[in-house]
Amino acid sequence: MLIKKLGEFGLIERFKKSIKTDLSVIKGSGDDCAVLKLDKSNYQLFTCDMLVEDVDFTLKDNPYLVGRKAVAVSISDIASCSGEPRYCVISLGLPKNTKIGFLDKLFEGMSDICREYKVNIVGGDLSGNNRIVIDVSMLGVVEKKHLTLRSGAKPGDIIFVTGSFGGSLAGKHLKFTPRLKEARNLARGFRINAMIDVSDGLTQDLSHILKQSKVGAVIYEDLIPKSKEAVGLNDVLSSGEEFELLFTISRPQARKLFKNPEYKPIGEIMKIGYGFKLVNSNGREINIRPKGFTHF
Amino acid sequence: MLIKKLGEFGLIERFKKSIKTDLSVIKGSGDDCAVLKLDKSNYQLFTCDMLVEDVDFTLKDNPYLVGRKAVAVSISDIASCSGEPRYCVISLGLPKNTKIGFLDKLFEGMSDICREYKVNIVGGDLSGNNRIVIDVSMLGVVEKKHLTLRSGAKPGDIIFVTGSFGGSLAGKHLKFTPRLKEARNLARGFRINAMIDVSDGLTQDLSHILKQSKVGAVIYEDLIPKSKEAVGLNDVLSSGEEFELLFTISRPQARKLFKNPEYKPIGEIMKIGYGFKLVNSNGREINIRPKGFTHF
Repeated sequence: MLIKKLGEFGLIERFKKSIKTDLSVIKGSGDDCAVLKLDKSNYQLFTCDMLVEDVDFTLKDNPYLVGRKAVAVSISDIASCSGEPRYCVISLGLPKNTKIGFLDKLFEGMSDICREYKVNIVGGDLSGNNRIVIDVSMLGVVEKKHLTLRSGAKPGDIIFVTGSFGGSLAGKHLKFTPRLKEARNLARGFRINAMIDVSDGLTQDLSHILKQSKVGAVIYEDLIPKSKEAVGLNDVLSSGEEFELLFTISRPQARKLFKNPEYKPIGEIMKIGYGFKLVNSNGREINIRPKGFTHF
Repeated sequence: MLIKKLGEFGLIERFKKSIKTDLSVIKGSGDDCAVLKLDKSNYQLFTCDMLVEDVDFTLKDNPYLVGRKAVAVSISDIASCSGEPRYCVISLGLPKNTKIGFLDKLFEGMSDICREYKVNIVGGDLSGNNRIVIDVSMLGVVEKKHLTLRSGAKPGDIIFVTGSFGGSLAGKHLKFTPRLKEARNLARGFRINAMIDVSDGLTQDLSHILKQSKVGAVIYEDLIPKSKEAVGLNDVLSSGEEFELLFTISRPQARKLFKNPEYKPIGEIMKIGYGFKLVNSNGREINIRPKGFTHF
């Protein structure tokens, strides 16, 4: 059997089953970051993201933005757990005929975003390869009381997002701003029940929250902020690499958020029996089969 | 200009120059692990290693051993800083037509060695690729007083190694035992001045210690333990992926080590003006130009 038959998520489930971790691991595989014991009031966050030439970028893309993206995706993972990024190591697989100029720009993009977000580049590994592969592993820290996982959504919660959806392929996937400031502001001022960053697609990532929180949801077509580059509803619902925050919060807490234009309510968490539905512009309820990007 | 002109180490130097880190980084890029502040008596260690199909392994290799190696190389890095490995995340780039059976074995090799060395697998990332790429990032911990870097060697130190050299290509590179037990025993019983694991080749890795410690060295052909698979002296001196420990220790401390057959003295640290020399079996001093594996 080939892995494409099992699919990306099937493969992850297959691996996860056999993994055992000790008591210092608060949350292992299956969230945006691993969560590890650190000290009395903080957890450590640990995440990795691999970018591959011709999958996540091409040689025609601006190498500065490719380098920036390689780091930004991990910052986005840390943000979605409400933490602050601190350190990263970078593994690079490179063809022998890679141009120095390309690499200089790639590295400038990496070091600029690290400076901007106060991330220390502390090491790396170089290897030969026939395509460019960039893997960034990042450490962060989060106050125990602020940690947000995918598993905390409760029926009655309001579902919010940052930004707009459907613009990824038009260039956003290379230029997005990791929502660190927003995540930290939310952590400080509100009690967030569940959070994820939209990397696979809005409905697919929401379905990760639903599955891990054992709840259902309804979202409203007319409430979802659409990027002006979006190509129809399907693009809005399933476009990957948007790197916006998707989170749920209780109704009393939500009241204080409605006036803030940075966060838009798009729906509501329901009991699990309800399923996952979209109310379209005509007021009709449609069952959602989550769609988005998968590698296999 | 292409990167092969600059070479692997030239490339690393080029990148390192522009990196700035904050005061929480005890040692950034340029050692086996990054060393980060953790608590009053311990540092955190952070390292990453990328393995690429047809560079570090082939599809003809036993996938169980490939998975084992992917994790073992990082354990070896943690060991060479005298620390204990704790957590890892694994990024995998995979062709769509990868067989499930291959992956199952690969993963079994990874999880078995993690269990053996008490490493928690806490996350990962999957991506499509045209070759198999495995990047493991690992966290460890080391008592401040036991940390060993490449930079602490002093003239008069005796140079020791574990194991034997020249057997890598005959299969050792897939089956080696990370020298964690030995490193921890050394840390507890001795004051190690400098340590590295031999991944690039004996003379090349010793030259890393010499450069960072600003010292010279003499090694003796007849003292270097040779693997029975070694193909001549050149193989012994430059074979990569041996994953043995190479360390230096003061003469008074060394006396207590001579009786332990696990550690073999191979030479002596000299003042920098002496250079780096080999005394061959005929008693002749030969200048060494460090050779070993480089990717570009």
